[in-house]
Amino acid sequence: MKRIAIQGERGCFHDIAAHAYFPDEQVQLICCTTFEKVFEEVEKDPTVIALLAIENTIAGSLLHNYDLLRKSGTMVVGEQRLHIQHCICCLPDDDWTTVTEVHSHPVAFMQCRSFLAGHPALKAVEADDTAGAAACIARKRCRGRAAICAADAARIYGLKILEDSIEDNKHNFTRFLIACQPQKADFLRPLTDVDKASIVFSLPHEEGSLSKVLTILSFYGINLTKIQSLPVIGHEWEYLFYVDLTFDSLTRYRQSIDAITPLVKSIRILGEYREH
Amino acid sequence: MKRIAIQGERGCFHDIAAHAYFPDEQVQLICCTTFEKVFEEVEKDPTVIALLAIENTIAGSLLHNYDLLRKSGTMVVGEQRLHIQHCICCLPDDDWTTVTEVHSHPVAFMQCRSFLAGHPALKAVEADDTAGAAACIARKRCRGRAAICAADAARIYGLKILEDSIEDNKHNFTRFLIACQPQKADFLRPLTDVDKASIVFSLPHEEGSLSKVLTILSFYGINLTKIQSLPVIGHEWEYLFYVDLTFDSLTRYRQSIDAITPLVKSIRILGEYREH
Repeated sequence: MKRIAIQGERGCFHDIAAHAYFPDEQVQLICCTTFEKVFEEVEKDPTVIALLAIENTIAGSLLHNYDLLRKSGTMVVGEQRLHIQHCICCLPDDDWTTVTEVHSHPVAFMQCRSFLAGHPALKAVEADDTAGAAACIARKRCRGRAAICAADAARIYGLKILEDSIEDNKHNFTRFLIACQPQKADFLRPLTDVDKASIVFSLPHEEGSLSKVLTILSFYGINLTKIQSLPVIGHEWEYLFYVDLTFDSLTRYRQSIDAITPLVKSIRILGEYREH
Repeated sequence: MKRIAIQGERGCFHDIAAHAYFPDEQVQLICCTTFEKVFEEVEKDPTVIALLAIENTIAGSLLHNYDLLRKSGTMVVGEQRLHIQHCICCLPDDDWTTVTEVHSHPVAFMQCRSFLAGHPALKAVEADDTAGAAACIARKRCRGRAAICAADAARIYGLKILEDSIEDNKHNFTRFLIACQPQKADFLRPLTDVDKASIVFSLPHEEGSLSKVLTILSFYGINLTKIQSLPVIGHEWEYLFYVDLTFDSLTRYRQSIDAITPLVKSIRILGEYREH
């Protein structure tokens, strides 16, 4: 059995991703209201695993989660990609003529912009979580209220789907990371299996310092699958570089990290894992 | 007089940024409901200038706007940084005891998360725009309803500020870009003044292709101030690299672009302008 801390309620995309990542295992969810609380759960109990969204093809990187991950003492041990599809659902007695409000997470609203523009009479009300909006309607029997969530959540909470696949862009994927306390990492992914790493580093204020680092990585046969510079909040002239790397040989990858370390100002390995 | 197309209503952060960028000029706003409409305004009238948010230190890059900018035929001619501060405001007759709903843009809600968590009784309702939410309350005399917006917007619409600076993080900056039809670019910024450029390129599937490009840029003395890889929506294995460059010599920068062009799959100069 795996105990997974997520942000959101049963039926949310984090729940779906947790079951997709551990397909043949019993999953016990620890549902948190914030991502901060997800990391607190892992910190106080080393058997708990965190699963959190990190980027979406439409909405971009979740900078806040990058920040929490970097500051937490956890290690990334896996990733999961999920195709995100939204439905709009309500109580079985309601329909298009009676629904006046739609509740969901702001990111879901952003992903269903055209749909909402086509239904200007619907008042869009923020909720902490897509599935939480559906759960609340079912629990409190809220007439006239709809939720935008995964079709799975609508089914779990016994709601009627008014329309499915209402997201603007059908190529809507979210990438989730799985993280745990470092001493638990080897139980969750044997190091012999890893072919990908997430690292974050800062650089000295010198011309060409990024190109030196990337050139060394390429000399070692390491591929970049993602690179993103982020200003350090509160230090607007300093940047952190979040980089995802893939490789064939763990040894070569480790050597490449040793080779770039003297050239960076600071570096942290967020984790080594198997590419999804 | 400058005619500026923005997303949002009078008093929104785009309006504030427009006046900050053209401090000594009369500004006529063309207020649009979407960023798509902003670019349509520029397309149908070459005298219109677009001003749009492109990244925020807390919320990250606005990928949708990067996409619109890349696909539009416009050229970036300037940038403006703005410190983002939110207030909560309502009709003068209302106060904390009578307000039950707060209306604003989803990004503003994300930037005031702690504030909202501290006021769980307030129902957060989505609006197209921060200033629009304030305008709507003032116009329709909505009792019991508050807006989250710039203090300027509260003043413009005659609303009472219940609390100012309610954003979670005080280091909350947004960067805006100013864009126009290419034939107008030289009127808006003399090329002799430019020291920054925004470019976007894709790379062949070859190991080290990014490091080659960055190494050439560094050989030419060009600095990177931002780099971001984005998957091409619908082609999940292809990436676009958005890069911001600064330089001392326009000639050297032009030569560096010539030097990297044969090594990229495609490249587009989004614009050359003066760093803010």
